[in-house]
Amino acid sequence: MMKAVLLTIGDELLAGVTVNTNAAWLGAELTARGITVARIEVIGDDPEAICQALRRARAEAAVVILCGGLGPTHDDRTREALAGCLNRPLRLQPELLAQIEAYFRQRGRSMPERNRVQALVPEGFVPLPNPVGTAPGLWLQDEAGVLVVLPGVPHELQTLMRDVVLPRLEQLPGRPVVWQQTLVTAGIGESDLQQRLNGVEALLDDAVRLAYLPDPYGVRLRLTVQAPSDEQARQRMEKLVQFIQERIGSALVGRDAETLEVVVGQLLRRLNATVAVAESCTGGHLADCLTNVSGASAYFRGSVVAYDNTVKIDVLGVEPEVLAREGAVSEAVAVQMARGVRERLGAHFALSTTGIAGPTGGTPDKPVGTVWIGLADAHTAFARRYYLPGERRRFKQRATAAALDLLRRHLLQKAASTPALSA
Amino acid sequence: MMKAVLLTIGDELLAGVTVNTNAAWLGAELTARGITVARIEVIGDDPEAICQALRRARAEAAVVILCGGLGPTHDDRTREALAGCLNRPLRLQPELLAQIEAYFRQRGRSMPERNRVQALVPEGFVPLPNPVGTAPGLWLQDEAGVLVVLPGVPHELQTLMRDVVLPRLEQLPGRPVVWQQTLVTAGIGESDLQQRLNGVEALLDDAVRLAYLPDPYGVRLRLTVQAPSDEQARQRMEKLVQFIQERIGSALVGRDAETLEVVVGQLLRRLNATVAVAESCTGGHLADCLTNVSGASAYFRGSVVAYDNTVKIDVLGVEPEVLAREGAVSEAVAVQMARGVRERLGAHFALSTTGIAGPTGGTPDKPVGTVWIGLADAHTAFARRYYLPGERRRFKQRATAAALDLLRRHLLQKAASTPALSA
Repeated sequence: MMKAVLLTIGDELLAGVTVNTNAAWLGAELTARGITVARIEVIGDDPEAICQALRRARAEAAVVILCGGLGPTHDDRTREALAGCLNRPLRLQPELLAQIEAYFRQRGRSMPERNRVQALVPEGFVPLPNPVGTAPGLWLQDEAGVLVVLPGVPHELQTLMRDVVLPRLEQLPGRPVVWQQTLVTAGIGESDLQQRLNGVEALLDDAVRLAYLPDPYGVRLRLTVQAPSDEQARQRMEKLVQFIQERIGSALVGRDAETLEVVVGQLLRRLNATVAVAESCTGGHLADCLTNVSGASAYFRGSVVAYDNTVKIDVLGVEPEVLAREGAVSEAVAVQMARGVRERLGAHFALSTTGIAGPTGGTPDKPVGTVWIGLADAHTAFARRYYLPGERRRFKQRATAAALDLLRRHLLQKAASTPALSA
Repeated sequence: MMKAVLLTIGDELLAGVTVNTNAAWLGAELTARGITVARIEVIGDDPEAICQALRRARAEAAVVILCGGLGPTHDDRTREALAGCLNRPLRLQPELLAQIEAYFRQRGRSMPERNRVQALVPEGFVPLPNPVGTAPGLWLQDEAGVLVVLPGVPHELQTLMRDVVLPRLEQLPGRPVVWQQTLVTAGIGESDLQQRLNGVEALLDDAVRLAYLPDPYGVRLRLTVQAPSDEQARQRMEKLVQFIQERIGSALVGRDAETLEVVVGQLLRRLNATVAVAESCTGGHLADCLTNVSGASAYFRGSVVAYDNTVKIDVLGVEPEVLAREGAVSEAVAVQMARGVRERLGAHFALSTTGIAGPTGGTPDKPVGTVWIGLADAHTAFARRYYLPGERRRFKQRATAAALDLLRRHLLQKAASTPALSA
């Protein structure tokens, strides 16, 4: 077993100003590569505390990853702590300085004088240039093991890990084979999922693990298999995936990065079809999700966020009498919104959402959390009622997932029956 | 200064399956009460590791909070670790057992035999009954200080802290008075902000702290003041806020929960005015942000996400010749989109976004990250060019913030000159 300890530096983590997402991200990436995180420590921007934690960690684990405190301000003490603690004086690296200066120049600015400290490297460390920021990473490999130092800004940390650090760690000898896979599900809660997977325990042990990861968009299942060889790992993983597939059927959306919006995009491309959406209660979040997929312009025509009822009437063609009679949160309005946006924006398929996000606006008949989701294509238009209670943002996310899942299941049927479509 | 160390237990935290939100929540609650979190440790479900961490923590801090590992399964080892480590044998507490049995009975079930272990309490600890779950908290106060043990399920931990633990901690003598405030800024990067606040160091010391919290929407400034009395805390906080206000002027959006979308909403209400948006590259994210504010329907009319150029022409009235000549990402198209959506949706103010989110679609003239943001009202229509490079989602967030900030500054001028508006 190869062990790692993570040291995350920053007063803002201790004071609860920032949630330590870096530790979770690093933990998942290392675990996926057979490196077991044995301990995580959060320490303030204090050289003495950093030094103590660093000594403890290096005595304990072959891999130590330390992040945060590499910024240019006087609060950032990591560089100085490393130099003092490991007795490795800081040296200015002219090449690194040139890269930092270039980073500013590309953005039309000159480098502030204080960023100069970011070109200081403790003796013996290899600097890892940062393409998306000014704080370089640092790598040391000595008799105590590997010490990696990374900036604390999440997207900088992730870029450096992916591009430079993980490939280097994968070269280290002695890691077990680890296979990991995430199964994305939709339209089924955590307890129902557990009930459907009853009996899966017989396939699990210390080397084959299953974790339920619920979020507002659905529950993901994380499968982790450790084995002496790739072949054995492949076999155990396959057995587990097959068991789950048989039990959950069409609630399985895809694997790993195949989220609802990605799979909906794949199906639309396969059908050579387009989609448009009309949103009331989701307020733009459904369009936002769809356009998070690079290349969405190939199949996503657009959205009308009809927050005001006059916009539902003027732009989407909802009938004023229907609005008045049934109310905005109704089956009839959801259907007319979907039909209207489909015609107006010239798409093959259309979705609509209308509901009560809260915290105000609920009634006994239509409590906060009620939402109608409509779907229209050339042949049909219908709406389904859902009840998705929860805080405002969570409601928008759950309603968005329900809409995407409704379309996904509809497209799956179309894809099974039709080779191509015309509007 | 009263110091605390947090110990959070759980293999799922180490493997990155769960983000450690408990630590952040506890950190914020303790900091707000003058208890400084000096260190946080995450440890697996392993009695020996728990014991080591516990000894280290108690030697270091007057308050130690340990959470997780109090469940009824054999993976939960915290109770046994406490008993062994502190040499305090576990005793069954009949009253606690009766409470746990009652918890199940109220839910129409009988207590599973394995939950019996949750009524075991190490000698000398005070059990803290849990109204929302079966794992009780534990409290020990001895010569080493206070040791609090809590279940790891977030809403159980939070309920026990609020109802029982924080009131007890507030009784401890020697806590300083703490005032906290967050200032929200927009349209200014972290380094520029630091440059503008040059000299603020003279106002800061161990008891008056300033933290920069950058996210894609802008930089927030967290101000924390510790003082022997409320009056002294108020004075020092006021001095700091005044200094910052003078230096950053209109880049200051608001305090605490007054984010860009909240302040834009306040200004629109004050002007008795409405807004509509036309989005291309932000793909719905701008509308999503605006509708995250409860009550947004009072001033937000809606959005047209015109992802496809034909939607820009058909729904927003952008001229095909202008689109062909200038390209979708251009000043002229941004202006026509804003004008079009303002008229079409009948709003006083309108925003538009058109840009290149990437990763593909950039040109030397218009690289990925280029965005034009348009603004229209009854008197004017204009657009500004921004360069906001970054990963796709981050780009959408930054462009959304830039659009909201453009509108905020425009509304501030209107609010200063006009008492009320008509479309």
